[in-house]
Amino acid sequence: MLRVSLHRLSPSARCSCSPRSLSSRSQTFPSAKLRSSVSAMRDFSTSSDLTTKLLFRQLFEKDSSTYTYLLADVGHPDRPALLIDPVDKTVDRDISLVKDLGLRLIYAINTHVHADHVTGTGLLKTKVPGVKSVISKASNSKADMHVEAGDKIYFGYLFLEVRATPGHTQGCVTYVTGDGTDQPNPRMAFTGDTLLIRGCGRTDFQVSFWSTFDWFLLNQIFTLPKDTYIYPAHDYKGFTVSTVGEEIQCNPRLTKDKETFKSIMENLNLPYPKMIDVAVPANLVCGLQDDSSAEPVVATSK
Amino acid sequence: MLRVSLHRLSPSARCSCSPRSLSSRSQTFPSAKLRSSVSAMRDFSTSSDLTTKLLFRQLFEKDSSTYTYLLADVGHPDRPALLIDPVDKTVDRDISLVKDLGLRLIYAINTHVHADHVTGTGLLKTKVPGVKSVISKASNSKADMHVEAGDKIYFGYLFLEVRATPGHTQGCVTYVTGDGTDQPNPRMAFTGDTLLIRGCGRTDFQVSFWSTFDWFLLNQIFTLPKDTYIYPAHDYKGFTVSTVGEEIQCNPRLTKDKETFKSIMENLNLPYPKMIDVAVPANLVCGLQDDSSAEPVVATSK
Repeated sequence: MLRVSLHRLSPSARCSCSPRSLSSRSQTFPSAKLRSSVSAMRDFSTSSDLTTKLLFRQLFEKDSSTYTYLLADVGHPDRPALLIDPVDKTVDRDISLVKDLGLRLIYAINTHVHADHVTGTGLLKTKVPGVKSVISKASNSKADMHVEAGDKIYFGYLFLEVRATPGHTQGCVTYVTGDGTDQPNPRMAFTGDTLLIRGCGRTDFQVSFWSTFDWFLLNQIFTLPKDTYIYPAHDYKGFTVSTVGEEIQCNPRLTKDKETFKSIMENLNLPYPKMIDVAVPANLVCGLQDDSSAEPVVATSK
Repeated sequence: MLRVSLHRLSPSARCSCSPRSLSSRSQTFPSAKLRSSVSAMRDFSTSSDLTTKLLFRQLFEKDSSTYTYLLADVGHPDRPALLIDPVDKTVDRDISLVKDLGLRLIYAINTHVHADHVTGTGLLKTKVPGVKSVISKASNSKADMHVEAGDKIYFGYLFLEVRATPGHTQGCVTYVTGDGTDQPNPRMAFTGDTLLIRGCGRTDFQVSFWSTFDWFLLNQIFTLPKDTYIYPAHDYKGFTVSTVGEEIQCNPRLTKDKETFKSIMENLNLPYPKMIDVAVPANLVCGLQDDSSAEPVVATSK
């Protein structure tokens, strides 16, 4: 097995996916068919706001009520794209959409090791050449790239900032779109299971981080601008989006004091997740790993 | 039973919900509790783009895979809001969200007489005083207000334009956000079952309009700017949004010539909708009607 060293996505190094390095890798474009569709489709791509060229799509997997997010920089010549929290069952749908939109998928990213579905990361890697799997170093999972708090994941001229939000699992991170006039406005936070709309992830999976769960959540997410969109990994009531301001004011758990919060979380009495025994072992290796990354890879500074 | 005459939402009359008439009706605000939350919540409401004050939420009902849409003008002092295609099962969720966001719900609108779920319009009317039900005149359904092609439905300074798109049912309409610098950009089209993402509604419910279905669809929706967002009433694969440009290029039915389209639609062999015998009779009276509109009401010019 090969041990692969990758460039760290540190704020200083700005990662291997800076616009310059993306351009230099254009020869690795997934397929001629996909490449040819780029120019044909470019004219109708829409951006989420008026200042950037972010193409954004929210996607839903019904069985596990999981949201997958597609983000792409359609202002960049390569139209690089990433998927956050893809699901194995809907990988073909996601690939079809990426193709329809003439995008180049470069990253398949997880917010954490999911217990309720198998990630689509592994399948994406087998079906779309060049895609790199990404997860937090703290997750202790296999992936092509491991990220830590403060790292930035560039796709074209846009980036996601990594914020540590452990508690639901020790490796939970929140990905937040960049801060700056050239980045999406309002900002968007992909909170995984850490912050749900009017809720938060269960904290009975592990004990080491849960006691600081609300601290991380309040300090890493609730300090964002109030108009920041909250895009969670799940919703079970049909909500699709919230905002930081809304959750600060309306979240029935996070508006409580620490002791009440602790009491709520300790008395949820949730059933054992039916998929956990299948999902967690699979997700610890990103669903499915190719040989080149079948052993843990350690991110190294550039 | 009372027979209620209502103002027509014609382009010339500009309807009873012009900014002026909304302001003059502020004393009919649903409840003191809701009113008090307006000022408290105003600071964190977000708009969908940088030029208008549209607050927009997409909501999902899982059993029937129905999307409900909440739109509000948070730039208007009354924060007037409307729901498109609410579902009876999720009315309490929708009301809770309206309350959380400090909005004043004024309209509950249907794109057509649904066959797969019971509309939430009737329940909304019983639970939120002052809400008016809206549906097309061509639907032959009971409602407080009937609209026709060309009509504009104002909520605050924003409006929806009505476009006739019969075929799935004879009364199907598409609601499109306004055209102008003071309206959302890109525009948004709420297509009901007429245009679905990579598909379109079945045409075997009735025969009178289906032969012109593709004509209406192509001429009333595909003539919109290519970056117009398509928000359908349903999606069964987990897509949440598309664009006019995307559907022009990628819709597997609408990219075909008329004869092929006809052949596709005649050979779908879809099962009899399991909810149709319950849903259609209920939806013909907007789910549930109060006494004041238990008989058909006819829109009259102002």
